[in-house]
Amino acid sequence: MSGFDIHAYLDRGRLLVDAALDRLLPPETAQPPGLHKAMRYSIFAGGKRLRPILAMAAAEAAGARPETVLDEACSLELIHTYTLIHDDLPAMDNDDFRRGMPTSHKAFGEAVAILAGDALQTQAFGLLARAHRSLRHSPERLIEVIGMLAGACGSQGVIGGQVVDIESEGRPVSREMLDYIHAHKTGKLIHAAVMLGAILGGATQARQADLSRYGEAIGLAFQITDDILDVVSTSEQLGKTAGKDAQAGKATYPSLLGMEEARRMQQHYFELSLAALASYDDAAEPLRQIARVIVERNH
Amino acid sequence: MSGFDIHAYLDRGRLLVDAALDRLLPPETAQPPGLHKAMRYSIFAGGKRLRPILAMAAAEAAGARPETVLDEACSLELIHTYTLIHDDLPAMDNDDFRRGMPTSHKAFGEAVAILAGDALQTQAFGLLARAHRSLRHSPERLIEVIGMLAGACGSQGVIGGQVVDIESEGRPVSREMLDYIHAHKTGKLIHAAVMLGAILGGATQARQADLSRYGEAIGLAFQITDDILDVVSTSEQLGKTAGKDAQAGKATYPSLLGMEEARRMQQHYFELSLAALASYDDAAEPLRQIARVIVERNH
Repeated sequence: MSGFDIHAYLDRGRLLVDAALDRLLPPETAQPPGLHKAMRYSIFAGGKRLRPILAMAAAEAAGARPETVLDEACSLELIHTYTLIHDDLPAMDNDDFRRGMPTSHKAFGEAVAILAGDALQTQAFGLLARAHRSLRHSPERLIEVIGMLAGACGSQGVIGGQVVDIESEGRPVSREMLDYIHAHKTGKLIHAAVMLGAILGGATQARQADLSRYGEAIGLAFQITDDILDVVSTSEQLGKTAGKDAQAGKATYPSLLGMEEARRMQQHYFELSLAALASYDDAAEPLRQIARVIVERNH
Repeated sequence: MSGFDIHAYLDRGRLLVDAALDRLLPPETAQPPGLHKAMRYSIFAGGKRLRPILAMAAAEAAGARPETVLDEACSLELIHTYTLIHDDLPAMDNDDFRRGMPTSHKAFGEAVAILAGDALQTQAFGLLARAHRSLRHSPERLIEVIGMLAGACGSQGVIGGQVVDIESEGRPVSREMLDYIHAHKTGKLIHAAVMLGAILGGATQARQADLSRYGEAIGLAFQITDDILDVVSTSEQLGKTAGKDAQAGKATYPSLLGMEEARRMQQHYFELSLAALASYDDAAEPLRQIARVIVERNH
């Protein structure tokens, strides 16, 4: 697609998602203000909104207008943000800063940080259920999305990956365990983002299968890229401490398999993601370009 | 209803709920076992299953067979248990024991306790979404229940109550604040339990309104009774440290209004709950008897 500008597309998507999140979250003045301030603080801490944008791009590839899944796609950002707040806690990664700002527990105390994370998860499912009232989507499709999202971020999804990641710290990690951690901790929610757009965008079963393969491939490509960036980037580019994984004794693909093999895998999953969309026309161009941005980003 | 034995009813309900929870939760051997062990540990720590039983009794009052909402009612116990795990954390109430057993963070460490709580919340919504496949309930009703439950346990429900409770510790608490804390922290989920049964049991709008008044009244009666028990019971009866609220400087109805007024309120809300069911026949007898048990219990 000549002339397609992915960076303009991502910028436009980010603004749309930011405005929708602002509209969908309770205001800071809602009772209790301390909690709603904390929820909004982490939500508006400057994310790229990759997951909601992926959902909109997947809906577009399925033949729907991306805006028709905008509100529902915000549930992905609520889930993503809640996992970041809880991951940063002293009992987990114990991070004081994220994207250059104090983490939630540093700004609001540990109790409110835990509860703000809890409330963002609740809100994600509440938002999908309330979307029913807009009549944009049938209850059947919304129920399917809620079940799919709960599976992706539950004990056998994102949370399972986080637990294995914690359990593996400072211990020898097998290739099998690392595949599990990456596929679950990061991959599941990226895959769910694509599937949310596919289902609500009305993709046929065959197209859902294609988009599922695309989502799985970019989820893995995303995490391998993160691992590579942790080794090769400066802290300034990352917005967090570079080399942190290595210091923490966390296994990564470069540390386990070497940088050459990590780069080979990154390229492999990038190509797999494009192959999944081989039969699609220009409507899938945003998805293709997002895959490219994921592996070519430097932060 | 002559011959109705509420204690046999509650025992039977508890066994049904325990068996359903065992069937609905992933086995301890599911990957990652550390997480699934922690989830099951807290779920099977000996709860009375009041909320799922209330949901079944409300479905019965609405004219449905209680067993038709059994699986869906388990979502209430998953939510209730997740809030207990997070409330017990060092950053919150810092409790080492619950029902005579070490709390989740004492048994599994803080990180796994936080994540087990997170996963139980996810599972609650996932379970309601998957209930669609059983064809027992329409997607419309399930979506309505998910939206209702998310509202009840989100930032303007249970979690809001918990935040105000934490913020109020050691500070003078007004009657208005105490009403807010009790109505939200405890009342919202008990009300949601009744409404889950009412909606999935097919109650008409008029009956939903009656059951909603019943649920609100017993939610308040339940919390006032807890406050009274904290003053008058021994630790042995409570299974936790008696007088803990007073020691922690937490406001309760007896401390704020005096024991006499607290008992008057307890009686008032008990009578309100019965009045809401005045036009109902024997199908509402379990709900009436549960209200009685709630205010007459000694632990």
